[in-house]
Amino acid sequence: MTVRKSPQVGTPAGMRVLNQRAVLDRLRRGGPATRPQIAKETGLSKPTVGQALLDLEQHGLVRTVGRTTAGPGRSAMVYEPNPAAGHVLGIDIGRQRIRVAVADLAGSVKARVDERNRCRSAGALVRTVRELAARTASDAGLSLDDLVVKVIGTPGVPDPRNQTLHHAPNLPGLERRGLLEELEAELGPELVVENDANLTAVGERAYGAARNVDVFVCVTVGTGIGMGIVVDGRLFRGAHGAAGEVGYLPYGPPSEVDREVRGQLEAAAAAESVVALAKEHGVTTAKSARDVFSLAKSGDERALRAVRDEAGRLAYLVASVAAVIDPELVVLGGGIGSNTGLLQEPLEAALRRMTPLAPRIVAGELGDGAVLSGAIAMGLRSARDLVFDRRGAVTL
Amino acid sequence: MTVRKSPQVGTPAGMRVLNQRAVLDRLRRGGPATRPQIAKETGLSKPTVGQALLDLEQHGLVRTVGRTTAGPGRSAMVYEPNPAAGHVLGIDIGRQRIRVAVADLAGSVKARVDERNRCRSAGALVRTVRELAARTASDAGLSLDDLVVKVIGTPGVPDPRNQTLHHAPNLPGLERRGLLEELEAELGPELVVENDANLTAVGERAYGAARNVDVFVCVTVGTGIGMGIVVDGRLFRGAHGAAGEVGYLPYGPPSEVDREVRGQLEAAAAAESVVALAKEHGVTTAKSARDVFSLAKSGDERALRAVRDEAGRLAYLVASVAAVIDPELVVLGGGIGSNTGLLQEPLEAALRRMTPLAPRIVAGELGDGAVLSGAIAMGLRSARDLVFDRRGAVTL
Repeated sequence: MTVRKSPQVGTPAGMRVLNQRAVLDRLRRGGPATRPQIAKETGLSKPTVGQALLDLEQHGLVRTVGRTTAGPGRSAMVYEPNPAAGHVLGIDIGRQRIRVAVADLAGSVKARVDERNRCRSAGALVRTVRELAARTASDAGLSLDDLVVKVIGTPGVPDPRNQTLHHAPNLPGLERRGLLEELEAELGPELVVENDANLTAVGERAYGAARNVDVFVCVTVGTGIGMGIVVDGRLFRGAHGAAGEVGYLPYGPPSEVDREVRGQLEAAAAAESVVALAKEHGVTTAKSARDVFSLAKSGDERALRAVRDEAGRLAYLVASVAAVIDPELVVLGGGIGSNTGLLQEPLEAALRRMTPLAPRIVAGELGDGAVLSGAIAMGLRSARDLVFDRRGAVTL
Repeated sequence: MTVRKSPQVGTPAGMRVLNQRAVLDRLRRGGPATRPQIAKETGLSKPTVGQALLDLEQHGLVRTVGRTTAGPGRSAMVYEPNPAAGHVLGIDIGRQRIRVAVADLAGSVKARVDERNRCRSAGALVRTVRELAARTASDAGLSLDDLVVKVIGTPGVPDPRNQTLHHAPNLPGLERRGLLEELEAELGPELVVENDANLTAVGERAYGAARNVDVFVCVTVGTGIGMGIVVDGRLFRGAHGAAGEVGYLPYGPPSEVDREVRGQLEAAAAAESVVALAKEHGVTTAKSARDVFSLAKSGDERALRAVRDEAGRLAYLVASVAAVIDPELVVLGGGIGSNTGLLQEPLEAALRRMTPLAPRIVAGELGDGAVLSGAIAMGLRSARDLVFDRRGAVTL
């Protein structure tokens, strides 16, 4: 997104910037601390730490949070990173809803908007996103210009060449050429558009079910099917950004589906197919996958059989993923996937019949806020550097 | 394998070692060069380069290859890394054959042995490997102790906890507990046992069809099915070493196969199934997959139909892999997979019917030497450091 300025090593100004960064990194990683604590842990002298704290405070990057009281000796000032030094915007463009949040650098959400997605064209979508972003910023007492980084999660695979999204059949307008440019024109620079399943994985790793897991996948099953892959703690996107597009897993005879529009497994296991499965089992009243799961929860035998069939198809997905990348953990989420109470047991049973490579399966912890959480987490990572470069190194 | 000694920075001896390493790295990467050339390219002074070359020559790590003749001024000595500074051993334990090679540090193969694998137990295998390794070393004028690193490629997933291999049903004895320990007892330390499909990928990237490709897979289809995955130029092994075990991809109804012994896709697409497919199409004379492909090559319509069916199953494999990791390139090899003349066209046609995510498919370039080449390539990588540490930094 932005080239990080590396201070000129060896010059006094360069050294000062390096020391500021070392002190700020310590505060971000280790939490609030006093000048002597920071000196001890960074190996810098107390006067050097003092100067760095002064610089950082002047630039609004750290703030004091009180004084130590316990222990012998004089009480000391306690410092922490200033959460208000910058803000990030996260947007989740889903088929049903558009969710927007503004968070400060500590990750605290300052304002949140959640509206029904009524857009039926790319133009309407761009306008709506702009309007909701501005409203959320204003609710947080900010303007769009105050937002250091903006991260949008959407279905599909962003293609920087054509400034569009591929493989996003479930959302009208997303595949329009130039869409990403239009969004950047409305929201300003430092905009990242990322696949929603990828952001779910980032979110579950930062705040949810995959904390400290190095090789895992997040499978989202709802209107569509998506998967985010994390390897060595980082998103794995594949050669063309299409890694994890498991809706395109082959399933059954190829002729049944128009492959350009919907993947075979997506056609077999996403929301519509749950309704179709239920019909096959004689459930006539269910209009949506949600209805089918409600019926199953209430003990309806026919709905339960449909859920078991769906679990078998998801087992097929998990077995395929396990044979290819051998993840430590599979996190299940999405409107359908989150029904682990009903799905997990038959899914695991089917999986054991299919493969000896059965990974651990858990429910996502972030629910329908996962994409937004991932957008915020991803935004924070680059915002922290950007804010330092702008406020610290650059103006020194 | 071994902790690399980092010289103590700041001491004169440490500086000398760092300079030696810089000079040797330059010669390895950039090819033969003179003292002034090296000085110019490394930024070291000519006397420093001269001292480093003297040290390296004394320790047998570089050698002279003549003098410059062209250009003005005095002619200068040209140096190169000494290929004889160390040797590596590569072993490919296949179901049909065991192949062994010894190569010097430049990767030149000094001796090679290729024998039928008659082993029907772990004990016989360990003895045979030891005997063939000793013989190959002796053919190269060396003893086993002279081999700095040994890399063995086998089917299955090495498990360091039990010192055994998992998921290796096609080779008798490989799954015996403690097997890896026994091999190390015979061959000595610095032994690496690696999945053969992984080594194929390493080999094709070092010397074959995947040079300079960052995200690719090598699919080997023969007696069994395996796949090596390279991400960002490095092997990707998954959370438990089972990444790429695509023989376990689900295919058809689960009950047909004993999942603990053979994976579903392996049962459907490896060598035996080609014979079965041919039978279904009325070919009664073919005893092996090789026979079926020979018949197809000669234009036998029934054999050609069997080959097309096989291509469809491999398309299923490639489509699954593409949906999960989106590789830039799929390299096809193995006794069956290498028949790209017959397979590629129907495979690509079937693939296009299955998925919009169709990666480029090419034939492997290393044939049945791929595993051995990969073993040598992997061995060389660590041997070069080991040799430097032993001959240079350590004895200084």
